[in-house]
Amino acid sequence: MEDNARVILQTFIAQFDALTDEEKEMIADNLVVEAYPKGKVLVKAGEVCSKCYFVLKGCLRQYMMVDDVEKTTQFFTENEAAVLFTSYTNQTRSESFLSCVEDTVVILGDMNEEAAMYEKFPKLQQITRAMMEQDFGKTQDHLSRFIASTAEERYLNLMETRPDLLQRVPLNQLASYIGITPESLSRIRKRIQKSS
Amino acid sequence: MEDNARVILQTFIAQFDALTDEEKEMIADNLVVEAYPKGKVLVKAGEVCSKCYFVLKGCLRQYMMVDDVEKTTQFFTENEAAVLFTSYTNQTRSESFLSCVEDTVVILGDMNEEAAMYEKFPKLQQITRAMMEQDFGKTQDHLSRFIASTAEERYLNLMETRPDLLQRVPLNQLASYIGITPESLSRIRKRIQKSS
Repeated sequence: MEDNARVILQTFIAQFDALTDEEKEMIADNLVVEAYPKGKVLVKAGEVCSKCYFVLKGCLRQYMMVDDVEKTTQFFTENEAAVLFTSYTNQTRSESFLSCVEDTVVILGDMNEEAAMYEKFPKLQQITRAMMEQDFGKTQDHLSRFIASTAEERYLNLMETRPDLLQRVPLNQLASYIGITPESLSRIRKRIQKSS
Repeated sequence: MEDNARVILQTFIAQFDALTDEEKEMIADNLVVEAYPKGKVLVKAGEVCSKCYFVLKGCLRQYMMVDDVEKTTQFFTENEAAVLFTSYTNQTRSESFLSCVEDTVVILGDMNEEAAMYEKFPKLQQITRAMMEQDFGKTQDHLSRFIASTAEERYLNLMETRPDLLQRVPLNQLASYIGITPESLSRIRKRIQKSS
């Protein structure tokens, strides 16, 4: 593991007060950290997604191919878990791709490693459960707001809640993420600039 | 508990092979089952959603109010858990309402009861974790498909995956659930009828 990745990992683990310092150190030793270059495709649609990725640094993008057009459906940045749950837990073919928008460092897991870690460190079960509940809530909220808003409201919401994405992600990916064409997104951005 | 609700509850619990018959019986005795009439509002936006609901029979609807218009964002039917996770786990104000589309029978839980049940029946932790992973996967898939599809594709997908909803739920609720007006939904239905 690179020194840099180790520091990021330790900072991440440091936040879990339920763990002793010794446990934190041992967990850091047991986790697998991987670095991927920008553009790397981690999961392809049609394949089983047997790994889960916790982003320590960088940005992953989930997307589907519809009539040869990429439809971006999710971004995962620092401190977010990218798990395509249906494929991962049922070992079924993924409908989505997962790729790196930037050079990205992740904690890499799979079901066997997960089970082994819970065996060694039972406290982790409660910690990951709480993380999953938070993530599930965010995904529910995202779905509800997506259904209930216009594209312009979705863009304004993104400016407020994930402003970093507007800097990190190409316009065409952002556009499909809020359900519109790049041309419509350009018009929305111009309208917002004028009125502000 | 009504006899009928008890039978539904026992049928639900019977599926968990990891539990002994004695545990199943004890768990059934410990769960709280409630029946609500059609139209009953269980959660209001602005309130903390301190309960979780597992639907044994009936249908719950999640919706937001946007400019005095109801935007339906989710339905929960038999064997689905209606938990507004952000509000429930963080004890923050819900953005959504939750109400009964039909007379509905649920297992009613809250965080204290949940913790007490895990204490008494540790195996339940693994069972509910597996259920949450399945539900999370479905919500992720729903979000991805919603972003990547047209309203007509969403309607066709609903016909295929949740045909019961088309019978159980009023047209205006279905329309907002797939992100369009009731008029647009009527046009889509006519077009599908003509072409089939």
